[in-house]
Amino acid sequence: MTQQTNQSWGGRFSEPTDAFVAAFTASIGFDQRLYHHDIRGSIAHATMLARVGVLTDDERDAIVEGLNDIERDIEAGNIEWSVELEDIHMNIEARLTDKIGITGKKLHTGRSRNDQIATDIRLYLRDEIDAIGSELGRLREGMIELADRHADTIMPGFTHLQTAQPVTFGHHVLAWQEMITRDHERLMDCRRRVNILPLGAAALAGTTYPIDRHVTAELLGFDRPAENSLDAVSDRDFAIEFTSFASILLMHMSRISEELVLWSSAQFDFIDLPDRFCTGSSIMPQKKNPDVPELVRGKTGRVYGHLMSLLTLMKSQPLAYNKDNQEDKEPLFDSVDTVKGCLRAFADMIPAIEPKKTSMYEAARKGFSTATDLADYLVRAGVAFRDAHEIVGTSVAYGIKQGKDLSDMTLEELRQFSSDIHEDVFDVLTLEGSVAARNHIGGTAPHQVRASAQRARDALKPAHAGGAQ
Amino acid sequence: MTQQTNQSWGGRFSEPTDAFVAAFTASIGFDQRLYHHDIRGSIAHATMLARVGVLTDDERDAIVEGLNDIERDIEAGNIEWSVELEDIHMNIEARLTDKIGITGKKLHTGRSRNDQIATDIRLYLRDEIDAIGSELGRLREGMIELADRHADTIMPGFTHLQTAQPVTFGHHVLAWQEMITRDHERLMDCRRRVNILPLGAAALAGTTYPIDRHVTAELLGFDRPAENSLDAVSDRDFAIEFTSFASILLMHMSRISEELVLWSSAQFDFIDLPDRFCTGSSIMPQKKNPDVPELVRGKTGRVYGHLMSLLTLMKSQPLAYNKDNQEDKEPLFDSVDTVKGCLRAFADMIPAIEPKKTSMYEAARKGFSTATDLADYLVRAGVAFRDAHEIVGTSVAYGIKQGKDLSDMTLEELRQFSSDIHEDVFDVLTLEGSVAARNHIGGTAPHQVRASAQRARDALKPAHAGGAQ
Amino acid sequence: MTQQTNQSWGGRFSEPTDAFVAAFTASIGFDQRLYHHDIRGSIAHATMLARVGVLTDDERDAIVEGLNDIERDIEAGNIEWSVELEDIHMNIEARLTDKIGITGKKLHTGRSRNDQIATDIRLYLRDEIDAIGSELGRLREGMIELADRHADTIMPGFTHLQTAQPVTFGHHVLAWQEMITRDHERLMDCRRRVNILPLGAAALAGTTYPIDRHVTAELLGFDRPAENSLDAVSDRDFAIEFTSFASILLMHMSRISEELVLWSSAQFDFIDLPDRFCTGSSIMPQKKNPDVPELVRGKTGRVYGHLMSLLTLMKSQPLAYNKDNQEDKEPLFDSVDTVKGCLRAFADMIPAIEPKKTSMYEAARKGFSTATDLADYLVRAGVAFRDAHEIVGTSVAYGIKQGKDLSDMTLEELRQFSSDIHEDVFDVLTLEGSVAARNHIGGTAPHQVRASAQRARDALKPAHAGGAQ
Amino acid sequence: MTQQTNQSWGGRFSEPTDAFVAAFTASIGFDQRLYHHDIRGSIAHATMLARVGVLTDDERDAIVEGLNDIERDIEAGNIEWSVELEDIHMNIEARLTDKIGITGKKLHTGRSRNDQIATDIRLYLRDEIDAIGSELGRLREGMIELADRHADTIMPGFTHLQTAQPVTFGHHVLAWQEMITRDHERLMDCRRRVNILPLGAAALAGTTYPIDRHVTAELLGFDRPAENSLDAVSDRDFAIEFTSFASILLMHMSRISEELVLWSSAQFDFIDLPDRFCTGSSIMPQKKNPDVPELVRGKTGRVYGHLMSLLTLMKSQPLAYNKDNQEDKEPLFDSVDTVKGCLRAFADMIPAIEPKKTSMYEAARKGFSTATDLADYLVRAGVAFRDAHEIVGTSVAYGIKQGKDLSDMTLEELRQFSSDIHEDVFDVLTLEGSVAARNHIGGTAPHQVRASAQRARDALKPAHAGGAQ
Repeated sequence: MTQQTNQSWGGRFSEPTDAFVAAFTASIGFDQRLYHHDIRGSIAHATMLARVGVLTDDERDAIVEGLNDIERDIEAGNIEWSVELEDIHMNIEARLTDKIGITGKKLHTGRSRNDQIATDIRLYLRDEIDAIGSELGRLREGMIELADRHADTIMPGFTHLQTAQPVTFGHHVLAWQEMITRDHERLMDCRRRVNILPLGAAALAGTTYPIDRHVTAELLGFDRPAENSLDAVSDRDFAIEFTSFASILLMHMSRISEELVLWSSAQFDFIDLPDRFCTGSSIMPQKKNPDVPELVRGKTGRVYGHLMSLLTLMKSQPLAYNKDNQEDKEPLFDSVDTVKGCLRAFADMIPAIEPKKTSMYEAARKGFSTATDLADYLVRAGVAFRDAHEIVGTSVAYGIKQGKDLSDMTLEELRQFSSDIHEDVFDVLTLEGSVAARNHIGGTAPHQVRASAQRARDALKPAHAGGAQ
Repeated sequence: MTQQTNQSWGGRFSEPTDAFVAAFTASIGFDQRLYHHDIRGSIAHATMLARVGVLTDDERDAIVEGLNDIERDIEAGNIEWSVELEDIHMNIEARLTDKIGITGKKLHTGRSRNDQIATDIRLYLRDEIDAIGSELGRLREGMIELADRHADTIMPGFTHLQTAQPVTFGHHVLAWQEMITRDHERLMDCRRRVNILPLGAAALAGTTYPIDRHVTAELLGFDRPAENSLDAVSDRDFAIEFTSFASILLMHMSRISEELVLWSSAQFDFIDLPDRFCTGSSIMPQKKNPDVPELVRGKTGRVYGHLMSLLTLMKSQPLAYNKDNQEDKEPLFDSVDTVKGCLRAFADMIPAIEPKKTSMYEAARKGFSTATDLADYLVRAGVAFRDAHEIVGTSVAYGIKQGKDLSDMTLEELRQFSSDIHEDVFDVLTLEGSVAARNHIGGTAPHQVRASAQRARDALKPAHAGGAQ
Repeated sequence: MTQQTNQSWGGRFSEPTDAFVAAFTASIGFDQRLYHHDIRGSIAHATMLARVGVLTDDERDAIVEGLNDIERDIEAGNIEWSVELEDIHMNIEARLTDKIGITGKKLHTGRSRNDQIATDIRLYLRDEIDAIGSELGRLREGMIELADRHADTIMPGFTHLQTAQPVTFGHHVLAWQEMITRDHERLMDCRRRVNILPLGAAALAGTTYPIDRHVTAELLGFDRPAENSLDAVSDRDFAIEFTSFASILLMHMSRISEELVLWSSAQFDFIDLPDRFCTGSSIMPQKKNPDVPELVRGKTGRVYGHLMSLLTLMKSQPLAYNKDNQEDKEPLFDSVDTVKGCLRAFADMIPAIEPKKTSMYEAARKGFSTATDLADYLVRAGVAFRDAHEIVGTSVAYGIKQGKDLSDMTLEELRQFSSDIHEDVFDVLTLEGSVAARNHIGGTAPHQVRASAQRARDALKPAHAGGAQ
Repeated sequence: MTQQTNQSWGGRFSEPTDAFVAAFTASIGFDQRLYHHDIRGSIAHATMLARVGVLTDDERDAIVEGLNDIERDIEAGNIEWSVELEDIHMNIEARLTDKIGITGKKLHTGRSRNDQIATDIRLYLRDEIDAIGSELGRLREGMIELADRHADTIMPGFTHLQTAQPVTFGHHVLAWQEMITRDHERLMDCRRRVNILPLGAAALAGTTYPIDRHVTAELLGFDRPAENSLDAVSDRDFAIEFTSFASILLMHMSRISEELVLWSSAQFDFIDLPDRFCTGSSIMPQKKNPDVPELVRGKTGRVYGHLMSLLTLMKSQPLAYNKDNQEDKEPLFDSVDTVKGCLRAFADMIPAIEPKKTSMYEAARKGFSTATDLADYLVRAGVAFRDAHEIVGTSVAYGIKQGKDLSDMTLEELRQFSSDIHEDVFDVLTLEGSVAARNHIGGTAPHQVRASAQRARDALKPAHAGGAQ
């Protein structure tokens, strides 16, 4: 039940760690994912130590070479992670010492695992933020082009899932693009707070070695060293902020997914998702299920859960580092993976959506979707809005009883409700007329949709060029 | 980017699933854990099908033998899971057909993956609930014995983390035991709702085959078949209820952990955790960190997150099964693993806690912990409680200024504040007197603590005997 | 900025509380809701104190009469709550002392606000649980009768929101009833853990007065006194358990709401919600919005939030009472109010739902909903299930191309896909035949639905009779 | 049970709303808080309508005057809100029509309650963000000055709540200031996304009136009109982002609170909170409880809950506006109130904290806090770090057995463990030496702390000047 450990901190202990406890508290099972960033961080640290004279150039070269070797070993699958060595840092250091001898032990000079892990996570997250930023750009681009192609494809707009007013499919897709754009902005804001160097904070108070943290920051591409060592090793607000970004993004994707699922139903029949994004049923041979949007919708809970997990984790923790913080990694890693998977699926799928124009158009023709246009017509004829609303409400009640939409009624029928209605009313009761009349920035008129798509395209360019939005 | 699939539902599809989509939507990566319960469910299903004449006895025997073979293969590590086959059900069925030919395909008669997965999860969870129940029993037992040994070990009781009144360590540990007992009860209540058979619900509406669900229920040890097929395949409230149990349990364990961490600090110095439950620091040679309670405290967030994840998952899902539900498994599995790990660590560690009696006693002597006893003394002498409170408040203010605890003051000093104080006051100002005087059910008097421990011991017996509380 | 307070604990303090701090920390703004239960608890406490001789009978009578007076004052609106007096307990006690003089101060003998508030909340929650239990019974009853009336009303059953197989509307409504029944069970399980008496725990350790907690428990209808004083004043797991019940209930109601919203859309057109449960639009005269289900769906977040709030609140709190716990009340109160409001709205609305039978029937006729029946037909003719599935998949693909449902195809067309198809196939391709064939417990066959409704009716009886499920 | 309503949308309805439903769905109970911003928005809308010729100047003047009157009425308490009129918008409009007649009905031209409420919330939130920004600035200022005063006050630094290394109190307080500064940044990032104009989106698709949204945006101080009408009325991501900011802020405040509670305990005894921020006990006369930090810690759950509430609310909502969104306001309002209350309490309290220097110093002297310094000393003497760590670990184990801290041992005792130790070792074993040696950016050396405080002061200036960080 117990084990003989040769751990780096055993000097003061009178009995070895319980074997179950060792496994329970080890993090190598999941922090091995950080090997690349751990090695990059160590190389920068060694380089800085040589720059300030704590290591000789030869020592530095041996360390750098050894670490590069180890990275190659890992990528070739030639390494076996040891639970006894607890974490990625000790696993790599032990191997380094095997390779280059006593010099390997000098790498840890002037740092602690506390600032090392904080650095690793930030390096890792910065890289993932950049990868996610690219996918966000790709998704936005796909949405903009889809919207532009369908700037005048008419569909019913809904509120309360009741037919409200006709809109264009392009306009609807651009609403999605706006949501995703704000998520992209939030990601970039988060990146600024991630890109700060903890290394040099050591265990919690800094180190007595003559380190130069500006050098390390520059070598690793960080904007600056963290201003306070206690804060640097203990806070994880940047991870919460990322998970908050991810939660809002998934919230948005769940809304889009919900619409794709609704629209794929026989009842709506607005779109056809290509077969390659769907699966079938083992028992019902006719089924074609919109698996991708359903699964993305389901993954919303996953990311919300990780956010709650990290918020709970940090609640009431006194400074500085506590073991609790080991629990920060899995929620963060899984949030990154989930976001990347969902974005890839969406960036592939969205541009392949084929709207069923006739079906959308017919749906928009029903449900009295131009009732507001009739009310506005009456107002232009001098009727107060609230009165016009009442007149149209009564004519809709009549239409429901008769099974007739407004545009199906005769002029005579319409004039039952107001003598201000004349022949020209039928211009405003068409879907095309209704849509074209909402002609201002943000409105659904086709040329406004095209102009908005163009602005979105312009806004996207710097994002693609520089990783920033 | 695409793949040729031979999936069970391909007939109506015009293009194969996109390879990324196939991987994104596959569940075999995590539902492989259910292999044992999937096979047990299939064997019961085949047995029932033979009982009602849908399968011949030979077909049943071939299927049962084939499935048992596959289980042995899996446990020997001789199986490679295929993402193309999506999930554990199709992986096992494909292998069965490889082994026993066309008869293997008959196993799926009268069921669907929708009721199959619901059955697998319930079988799995029921087993895990029983395992967790045992650990809860072991932990409670350890607490009861620790409490009994320390029924008269005096320590300060806190409110607002300020010294309030003396209590006994045994009394404090029994407070923990009460919390855990309620968690145990909640688990057993949850079990009743888990132990219901979904199989027979088929895809959502039941099946046209002459199945006998009571037979299947009995074979699998379920209390009864689920009453409604739509409900049976689509709800996951039982998983949420389990995760809610787990969240409350971890909440309790976080409170106990917080106390263990506080008490291990140099400032409190109330307990010594055995070295085998602690780890050290890579940089600070003097450190001995209470890793186990810290980590358990941190894992609270993990389980809260899973609860929120499942609640979000199910929000607004229309009936019946949706692909979203695939996301139910990982949070549930990880909640189970986390609960088991934390309970094992606690059940091992709690009985090994060694209270530092002198240190606790000294702490209780300070902080005017018997001020309430003085007030009660005055009330017994005829002073109204609120007046007595005021008198003692003033004497405490005096004590703070003089640096003297109440029991350190002379009779003369005490009588400055009330002429109702006499020589016998010193009896109630001792810690032993204070503790012994709280002599009613639930109170901290040592013999009440022992009696309470005995009742707890009695309550535990049936839990150990029958898996139930 | 500061105030002169005459608070019950001022003796040891050198400066008064800051006025903002007093308002910030006071709870009277929300705990005034507990006045009735606070007074009931106090009366029981006084009665017990007299029974054991701590109060005289005259003192008890004065207290009881004074408290009853105060309750009448409160209900007549003749009381002004004071923030200076912090909370409901001190407000009532101050008024009592105004009324009956010095005897009023004796009421607090042998108790503390810590056990008093814990008692108040439990008394309050027990009453609310009983009220909620009644509404759950009323809702279940409404569902059962609606289901019974529509045991053979056919509608499409969905998985993945794709037409799957025909079911009956009664069967669907009974699925809801099953969910709500489990929620009812969970509520009753929770009630057992709520109905325990904390009073007598005093501040944290019990009291030196010769109290009899069994008497108080009996007077207040509690099952028993809490077993441990530290636990009794500090835990709030019962409130979390209630909020967890509420979250699962609202999750279920959000699913039902989602369906009601979908079904009210022009695209589904399955039901008509009576106008009295809907509202309109200030701008679009034709709108009739399903506000009640939308709002209930939205309130799901509210209750999930309260659950997370309470879980966070309790995380890592050391024993015993901490001020944090003051934050337990508002989430609990609002959860109770939300549950009651949503249940009342549903219990009124559900029985008034009018399914549009023709529209449902037509929807079920489309979408190849009897494809599984065809597959089962082939299996009965000797084809292996997986092969039958393939055959039907191909015929569905043909049907999509030709715009024909299975039952619209000629025998000749169907026989293209399998020579095992004969004239009698059309019996299984009707909706009535499909539904009737799922004839086992839990299946959608009308007489199974009626039998299930009858069992549900029977199960409900004791719930109505005794408050328990 | 039902009511005669004269609602603005009644035309199409055949029965009045159920009275309970009217109350259940009304929002006036909480959205009355928005009256000021609703009126400001309406005035800007009317001004714009006159500018584009939809209203005459006289109509505009009547409306503006009427609205200003109403605001005065509200602030004088001369208005009774009506549940029948549903919400703040209809309540104000009805009153306007009472005052100025038919012209009042024209105000709603070209807008809908959907864009109106979205505008109101953003105006409200922008004002509250600015108020919160000021309090954050005040809190940061208080922290910086406290830190500067105590740049060389020595205390133990903790990891795992075990004594780790000496730090200065100023350094610790600056760690808090760094956390709060990042929160301030997040708030300002959020503000940019709040400050966008929804008005003009009308119900969902824009309006047929010739509105000029740039004018309205400018009148209301918004940066620009929202780019898409569907998005403008339906998203609430800005509210989630604010609540996410609030959650991270409260997380930070819970950590600070935890430390204040710990430090106020008799065991730590590091600080004295002024009496005006504390309360006492009704039963224990000696108690002085750190209520403010406890309550702030407790309020963390409240805000986390609101975040989860809003995330859940928006999950899976199809576009555009749904009634669910009515539930966005209470969590947002309460988050704002909670943040403001907690910040005010902290901004008042933090500068008044008095560290007990002697007590902190003595605590730092114990616990082998300079063990790392000894290891570093050995490394400078040529010992490899990992070996030095082992040597010091062994000497700590000796110290524990002997009851001696490192600085209490004789040179001879120390040399048992390494011959590299010489007389100058005692320089590095003092607290002052240890602290001063961590002399780099972010380190705990007093002059680094002062320099850091100065940089923080400089960073704060623009925040105070312009509301931005």
